[in-house]
Amino acid sequence: MADYRKMWEELDMDLQKHDGLCEVLPMFYEDVYLSQENRPEGMNYFNFVIAEVHGLRIKELQDVKEEGRKVIGSFCVYVPDEVTLALDAVPVGICSGSQFWVPDGEKLLPRNTCPLVKASIGAKISKTCPYFQSCDMVVGETTCDGKKKAWEILGDYMDVHVMDLPQMKREKDKVHWIDEINTYKSVLEEKTGKSLTYENLKEKINLVNQKRKVLKRLYDLRKCDPVPISGKDALLVSQIAFYDDIDRFMEMTNKLCDELEERAKKEEGVFEKGAPRIMITGTPMSIPNWKMHHIVETSGAVVVCEETCTGTRYFENPVKEDGQNINEQFKNLADRYLGINCACFTPNEGRIEDILRYIEEYKVDAVIYNSLQFCNTYAIEYKKVEAALKEKGVPVIMIETDYSEEDTGQIKTRVEALIEIVKDKKGVTA
Amino acid sequence: MADYRKMWEELDMDLQKHDGLCEVLPMFYEDVYLSQENRPEGMNYFNFVIAEVHGLRIKELQDVKEEGRKVIGSFCVYVPDEVTLALDAVPVGICSGSQFWVPDGEKLLPRNTCPLVKASIGAKISKTCPYFQSCDMVVGETTCDGKKKAWEILGDYMDVHVMDLPQMKREKDKVHWIDEINTYKSVLEEKTGKSLTYENLKEKINLVNQKRKVLKRLYDLRKCDPVPISGKDALLVSQIAFYDDIDRFMEMTNKLCDELEERAKKEEGVFEKGAPRIMITGTPMSIPNWKMHHIVETSGAVVVCEETCTGTRYFENPVKEDGQNINEQFKNLADRYLGINCACFTPNEGRIEDILRYIEEYKVDAVIYNSLQFCNTYAIEYKKVEAALKEKGVPVIMIETDYSEEDTGQIKTRVEALIEIVKDKKGVTA
Repeated sequence: MADYRKMWEELDMDLQKHDGLCEVLPMFYEDVYLSQENRPEGMNYFNFVIAEVHGLRIKELQDVKEEGRKVIGSFCVYVPDEVTLALDAVPVGICSGSQFWVPDGEKLLPRNTCPLVKASIGAKISKTCPYFQSCDMVVGETTCDGKKKAWEILGDYMDVHVMDLPQMKREKDKVHWIDEINTYKSVLEEKTGKSLTYENLKEKINLVNQKRKVLKRLYDLRKCDPVPISGKDALLVSQIAFYDDIDRFMEMTNKLCDELEERAKKEEGVFEKGAPRIMITGTPMSIPNWKMHHIVETSGAVVVCEETCTGTRYFENPVKEDGQNINEQFKNLADRYLGINCACFTPNEGRIEDILRYIEEYKVDAVIYNSLQFCNTYAIEYKKVEAALKEKGVPVIMIETDYSEEDTGQIKTRVEALIEIVKDKKGVTA
Repeated sequence: MADYRKMWEELDMDLQKHDGLCEVLPMFYEDVYLSQENRPEGMNYFNFVIAEVHGLRIKELQDVKEEGRKVIGSFCVYVPDEVTLALDAVPVGICSGSQFWVPDGEKLLPRNTCPLVKASIGAKISKTCPYFQSCDMVVGETTCDGKKKAWEILGDYMDVHVMDLPQMKREKDKVHWIDEINTYKSVLEEKTGKSLTYENLKEKINLVNQKRKVLKRLYDLRKCDPVPISGKDALLVSQIAFYDDIDRFMEMTNKLCDELEERAKKEEGVFEKGAPRIMITGTPMSIPNWKMHHIVETSGAVVVCEETCTGTRYFENPVKEDGQNINEQFKNLADRYLGINCACFTPNEGRIEDILRYIEEYKVDAVIYNSLQFCNTYAIEYKKVEAALKEKGVPVIMIETDYSEEDTGQIKTRVEALIEIVKDKKGVTA
């Protein structure tokens, strides 16, 4: 990495503490990622992005700010990037996924709060996240009790706008969500000094749809057997999608997909044909949360799909592009975003339908229901998902975990047992 | 207690399991309540109510049902009893507060769910709560992640209607809440076969306001020093308010207040003048959750106020009675109910204002912030409340607990330390 200390200093970062983070991440990445065999060439770009995760991309954000444009952080797939982009601002996902930030988060939040929320707050107050430091504003949402109340605390440290996501999906809730998008637009217009136009929004709706299409292309390739890319690598691409430059991201991901298509034609995979195929469903995985994928893929199985916010929920279902005016465009945005089936909604039957469909599409042998600790909505929803999967005869286990490594051995034992069940069913001997 | 076994059988209760509950409650009540010295005579009625908690009141509910009227359960102070009553139905609070029900709740809910939610679900599925068994419908709400998702599970066992409480308090959220009240009205009209009229609703708004006035009268008497009634007894009256016959409840509580007024005139109290005065703020306490009050009042202090849903939030602020039509009445209902400051709202500044005001009004020496385990909203909101209290120089401790007795000793130690601080400040020697 180049020397970015001056930039970090200007971002009011805690350099000493940040050094601690910079020291561990490369080694961790090497262990988890670079140890993989037969990786696609196209992953080199994503290796580079990770190496520069607090460097080059942050430098680019500073250049954006130099131009007078704004940087807007968010934590959730419900925040419409299209509006942010249409107002010439740059959206970045601030999905804090490291145990490194948890102790600082626990200074302000109860210990029995979800690690993602604790890490987010910890990343801000410890001044060790250059994304937070680069943001002119962050956009929170009311998707869960933990986040909803954490934004009040975060508001003491920076400019926070909260979008009030409805809890149901009736017609009036859609009207409410359209209004929330409208309010966000107004707040951002104020912030940027710019006005949203029909043309700008049209262009950005198209752009984000293209990005979704690229991710969908990547995921479609994971339906092959043997699978041409590891779940770990696919997850990484998905995670990077949240903050990379969109055009470059699409170019490099398409290039990766070209390579994967060649592999698929040759039936060349990173795991042998017939390897047990696992779907992970549940809570989001932010960089560098690769824990569950690493366990699965070092236990003889491959992750072929994530029904999560850092998986299918992020890119499935494009926004309709037929809006004839801003009102219609907002309606189309609301339609698409309220089509995401997060456990924060009640009821949330659509998620079970999604899971069952993906099991067919991705030829899934077993499901790991992965929930961040203290995430009430996903943890409670497990019973209904479990019942639906049992009815279909699909093996499933529920794993509740945090960002620490303490439970890794225990989880590995359970995952191995699941994989054994799959192998028995498939008649494959270990 | 009379023999109610036949009634319980007809309610499809698990008699054997229920016997277990009936065995422990009287002893527990004796220990916690009947051991108190110098109790007001007027508490005899409430002793009787507890003795008949699964008997006489349930018999009354069966009589109500015989008349063709409906029994509607709820779990939260946001559900407008006025509408239930105006449709000639009987509202009963189903606030499950016993550890007895938790293990059954944990069969369907994750262990790290709030004990109140686990006990509610456990009470239903174990068929040991005659209130649940008497209900024609229960009304849930979206006040927290745990409840919101638990209603989906409860819906597999009985008729559940969920009211979608907003998460903010803007003008449009009030409109949303008015609409939710309207939807509830329609659901209940369907259920009861009756139609809501302006006159009925007017009468019931007045009735529930009267009930609030009686509770307010009781609480006002707790402002005296010495305090003429223990916190434990006041809490019990408040808890019983949720399910007792309203007219009788008001009559008996007024009678109790007459007695307390006499005591106040004579400066006669249940604790000596100058005893440390504690306010409890936080999550609701359902029968038989008397844990914190019992600890405080056996440690040399007295609880003078509860800023909780089984305290001030239940009765403060009447509904305006000037509505000229049903729409205006609904608007007045929404105004009153959205005036309740639960931590489920963001922001929730009003709660801090309430707490600071009660500290003055009730001459509070110290505050115990009492949160049920795994209640994210209250646990996270603590930091802001703590800061406000520290600024005012009011000692505060945060206690997170469940329904078990395992942590009683540890809590007692912390409460005693708090009381010592108060005594030092007041210059009272122990």
